[in-house]
Amino acid sequence: MGKPTDLDLPDEGRLRVVIERVTPEVDAGRYPIKRVVGEEVVVEADIFADGHETLRAVVQYRAPGAREWREAPMTLLGNDRWRAEFSVEQLGRYTYAVVAWVDHFKSWQKDLGKKVQAQQDVAVDLLVGARLVEAGAGRARGGDARQLRTWAQELGAVEGRSVEERVALGSSRALGDLMAAYPERGLAARSEPELEVVVDPVLARFGAWYEFFPRSFGARPGGHGTFKDCAAQLERVAAMGFDVVYFPPIHPIGRAYRKGKNNNPVCAAGEPGSPWGIGGAEGGHKSVHPELGTLEDFRGLVRRARELKLEVALDIAFQCSPDHPYVKEHPGWFRQRPDGTIQYAENPPKKYQDIYPFEFETEDWRGLWVELKSVFEFWIEQGVRVYRVDNPHTKAFGFWEWCLNQLKAKHPELIFLSEAFTRPRLMYRLAKLGYTQSYNYFPWRNSKAELTEYFLEITRPPVADFFRPNLWPNTPDILPQYLQDSGRPAFMIRLVLAATLGASYGIYGPAFELCEATPRVPGAEEYLDSEKYELKRWDLGAAHSLQDLITRVNRVRRENAALQTNDGLVFHAIDNDQLLAYTKATPDGGNTILTVVNLDPHHTHHGWLELPLAPFGLAPRQSYQMHDLLTGARFLWTGARNYVELNPQYAPAHIFRLRQRVRTERDFDYFL
Amino acid sequence: MGKPTDLDLPDEGRLRVVIERVTPEVDAGRYPIKRVVGEEVVVEADIFADGHETLRAVVQYRAPGAREWREAPMTLLGNDRWRAEFSVEQLGRYTYAVVAWVDHFKSWQKDLGKKVQAQQDVAVDLLVGARLVEAGAGRARGGDARQLRTWAQELGAVEGRSVEERVALGSSRALGDLMAAYPERGLAARSEPELEVVVDPVLARFGAWYEFFPRSFGARPGGHGTFKDCAAQLERVAAMGFDVVYFPPIHPIGRAYRKGKNNNPVCAAGEPGSPWGIGGAEGGHKSVHPELGTLEDFRGLVRRARELKLEVALDIAFQCSPDHPYVKEHPGWFRQRPDGTIQYAENPPKKYQDIYPFEFETEDWRGLWVELKSVFEFWIEQGVRVYRVDNPHTKAFGFWEWCLNQLKAKHPELIFLSEAFTRPRLMYRLAKLGYTQSYNYFPWRNSKAELTEYFLEITRPPVADFFRPNLWPNTPDILPQYLQDSGRPAFMIRLVLAATLGASYGIYGPAFELCEATPRVPGAEEYLDSEKYELKRWDLGAAHSLQDLITRVNRVRRENAALQTNDGLVFHAIDNDQLLAYTKATPDGGNTILTVVNLDPHHTHHGWLELPLAPFGLAPRQSYQMHDLLTGARFLWTGARNYVELNPQYAPAHIFRLRQRVRTERDFDYFL
Repeated sequence: MGKPTDLDLPDEGRLRVVIERVTPEVDAGRYPIKRVVGEEVVVEADIFADGHETLRAVVQYRAPGAREWREAPMTLLGNDRWRAEFSVEQLGRYTYAVVAWVDHFKSWQKDLGKKVQAQQDVAVDLLVGARLVEAGAGRARGGDARQLRTWAQELGAVEGRSVEERVALGSSRALGDLMAAYPERGLAARSEPELEVVVDPVLARFGAWYEFFPRSFGARPGGHGTFKDCAAQLERVAAMGFDVVYFPPIHPIGRAYRKGKNNNPVCAAGEPGSPWGIGGAEGGHKSVHPELGTLEDFRGLVRRARELKLEVALDIAFQCSPDHPYVKEHPGWFRQRPDGTIQYAENPPKKYQDIYPFEFETEDWRGLWVELKSVFEFWIEQGVRVYRVDNPHTKAFGFWEWCLNQLKAKHPELIFLSEAFTRPRLMYRLAKLGYTQSYNYFPWRNSKAELTEYFLEITRPPVADFFRPNLWPNTPDILPQYLQDSGRPAFMIRLVLAATLGASYGIYGPAFELCEATPRVPGAEEYLDSEKYELKRWDLGAAHSLQDLITRVNRVRRENAALQTNDGLVFHAIDNDQLLAYTKATPDGGNTILTVVNLDPHHTHHGWLELPLAPFGLAPRQSYQMHDLLTGARFLWTGARNYVELNPQYAPAHIFRLRQRVRTERDFDYFL
Repeated sequence: MGKPTDLDLPDEGRLRVVIERVTPEVDAGRYPIKRVVGEEVVVEADIFADGHETLRAVVQYRAPGAREWREAPMTLLGNDRWRAEFSVEQLGRYTYAVVAWVDHFKSWQKDLGKKVQAQQDVAVDLLVGARLVEAGAGRARGGDARQLRTWAQELGAVEGRSVEERVALGSSRALGDLMAAYPERGLAARSEPELEVVVDPVLARFGAWYEFFPRSFGARPGGHGTFKDCAAQLERVAAMGFDVVYFPPIHPIGRAYRKGKNNNPVCAAGEPGSPWGIGGAEGGHKSVHPELGTLEDFRGLVRRARELKLEVALDIAFQCSPDHPYVKEHPGWFRQRPDGTIQYAENPPKKYQDIYPFEFETEDWRGLWVELKSVFEFWIEQGVRVYRVDNPHTKAFGFWEWCLNQLKAKHPELIFLSEAFTRPRLMYRLAKLGYTQSYNYFPWRNSKAELTEYFLEITRPPVADFFRPNLWPNTPDILPQYLQDSGRPAFMIRLVLAATLGASYGIYGPAFELCEATPRVPGAEEYLDSEKYELKRWDLGAAHSLQDLITRVNRVRRENAALQTNDGLVFHAIDNDQLLAYTKATPDGGNTILTVVNLDPHHTHHGWLELPLAPFGLAPRQSYQMHDLLTGARFLWTGARNYVELNPQYAPAHIFRLRQRVRTERDFDYFL
């Protein structure tokens, strides 16, 4: 026999339990999953060992900053799959892992029962059990230890007690429970690596965003709006039921190569320029554009917003106008050209001479990273908790992972929305690295097939574990073709889709409310006379405004928990390709919302909807009420197949709440 | 600005390329994938960086024992997915990884082209290019370095050369190619962890196995067969076209609690016992049962087999009869009971008193592991390269990973077949840990839906990357219900299914050839008068023998490369649930086999088969020949939809080779 040395033997070969396929996880644990405060983390794993013994398993989890692990016992679902859940109550990073072991005592109890039933001799088995209980006593404390020791003696007592008595004791629930409290875990297996869940505020999952340009809300016509002028607008937005008010960059705007109206390379005198041309003599990313007011004015606006239960979101765009102070102070952070100039942004043949991108391959990348992070830190000090980040996919991915994690380690309440309209892999990567929410392809998903496929992808694991979509039917950069062609019904349709498919959604508000739909040139997805390059006056009281509908939709969202998450999204069959039907429901079934949308803004459509009944607790021929929360209308439906008709001019969608009929002793119809 | 210290900054923040989702891999690289000598490893990865620059990527791979990495350039498939392949020519473990970097020069060339086309001023761009080429010269050697330096000067020459000349040089393929030969890879990303591929002999993928009990082939009737007696049987098995001949355990058989005929707990005098009751006074796992002959006889048999191009496979069953020498020498390797006895195997209420299992939680687990491994080493020295391991799922998983990897590090030609008929997770785990091939659920997959679902699961990644099925329609332990009920046609059906669905298959030969179908008791899946407990005499020349069919099927397998792998398996629609149709094809399309099986052994069935034409290079109305390799019949088919009829009494299956019609100048039909 060879000597057991130099053989690459493991440290502990007696460890027999295997733990595999722990979920949820992202990329084998390389990135954390995401949850919000109050949610459950449902952990599953494949757990097994050689042979037929009984196993036990727990999920260990540790709250942010805690030293102690807590444990949730797992139960076997079948086919070696186990499950437990724990809830996350604190902001920050929890850690979790699965621990499992062979339960020799439980295995013994199980075998004892079978042998007794088969009337086999169990004399030796009882002695084996006595040994196990004696060992359990050694692990127990105080009275439990004494109790186990007593039972061990009784189990092993070959005289004075009948075999029947000893079998009864050995099989007893009391002994089983006490032994289970002091398990032998010396050879327990633990899953690797430890997994993490980032716990964000509820607003990371559920919120309605409203974007506007403060400068367009000047008190006097034609004048540059200030933060102070925005107070009334804040109240209006809050009254409409929004949760976040989001501003384009508020920093000084450069003068070199400043863009004029409609992105004109030549800027006329007095034109305000694009807020994304950041930095001038007045300062850079840590300064406020003087015409908007002072930093104190801004802080006042944030305070006022919070009184109205609104969060202010800032747009952080890491790029510089040629006038930005960084250009002189840190020329090494930009790409120097052989002629002594700095490389402006370009995507040949397009040139963006008003924009200098940062050079992330700079030798002084450490200095650059630290400074960029300090921009967030500056605005965090001013009270801002929510950030929309401009084009993060054109900055080094490594920077984001470091920056977002550093910031969230100190400020776990922060929310970062990734404005990356780019290829799928990049968008997902940014979400994995730490972005709380993400812009996505919703603006370009219009047909039933497109919407179904895309939302099945992004609302289910593995994607849903790290990627939270925020749905925007329009932005200052994007006026989708769909909205250009079909007037007010198109806006109503896209609003309902965004607000019901997405627990988080947003609108570039004034333009959306007023159904602004004129493109710069036919075919382009940009606005004519874009607010990016000029001050606008919005007639928000116009008769065709969608303000009332938006207010109603937001109220429905607030009153119906099913719409506050994407977890329960299920699409349903309906025999018309222009009708899209889907439900969201709370896990307890207490709130179920069925949305049916006519995707065709031009024609009335009707169809027969197939609703699976069992998931909603409905019997095959049961009647139930569908209460349209948009119109107030109530429909009595029966069974799985029901008729729907939607006229886009009037109301292109139903947002039904399912109300089940309950019979009372008076046998009147009564709806819960 | 903060100091860039204590900030948990990465070592190199300038690394901008991201590599994700490298495939193939098993459990994020925790286990190797499997291939055989001569196969390709097709590596894919998601590769991207911030911004719009051009990337380059290679797969690095290293042969077993080699120090140098070789590289295969990757190409972009679209949607940020890249691919390259390399072939594995040596037995053992290859390592591979993906390396990718931003190609600044290629990006520059691409942008230059766009700017020139847009008639933009490129004066500064040419200077930028000159710098890049100068840097390239610094990385190059010899003449290449001189050439690049010259070109750098020409590119940067503001006098003496026209802009047009310099643009032509900058855009030139020659310059691009030379720069590509000396890439700047200082900031290249490399995928982690390094992945591994275990390269096995071709027999690991493709082979036909034949199992028989040597003791049943005694020269004189009723006498115990010896290794020498088996010579004729070896020749017969080789003539039938098998590749592996596999014997149940050949070790001394214990006498304590020896089992009699039909698993009788009482053994009559002279009964031979079960070969799985291993160990007696004559020795244990490293000894030969004396009645079979000597170790030298066994070595002679292995030599004779190899002359016949047969590998001998041994059954290794790690369990002991109470008479095994280990029991006395290493009592600590077994579970001691309080009454001083050793715990025999049991699955209450069943008792296996003739078997002592090893206790893998023994304190002396190191000694046990080393000894068990030495059992394989002993038989490797006798020339055995192929092992069927009995019930590996009842031994610690950690042991197998260590043992199999240790053995294969020295002997990469070894093949281990896992006989684990247990739950799916355990079977897959054993495959991941190092088993070359695996028994599987084929014996219990009979219907079209069952076969389709199961084979789609096990013949495609991720499972196919680590799990190689070996299909057995019967074993000495398993006489499936399907074979019991339906006579000879059932055996023909299961043979064709095993031999065409699986590149590796095997039969418990004499019983299968003779369609032995009597269960021990009705409903049991065990043989009456099982050869496990007694010597049998097989009338292999009987008229109803399947020897001819088996021989023909094995020849078809050898002559058709498509049947030698599971990679190309595709199921096809046929409008009869008793007919199963599937193709296998070589990647080059040179060999395509369509198998159609009537799964009903009782009735003739017919149906219309839908064959997709494009994958086989057939035009919609093209005629082609289907050549049945079992019967020799030839059918002229046209288009996608064709008629099939199968009478199970005559031939329950077609194994068609697709032969395409080619028109010659004489316009006679001519079949390739």
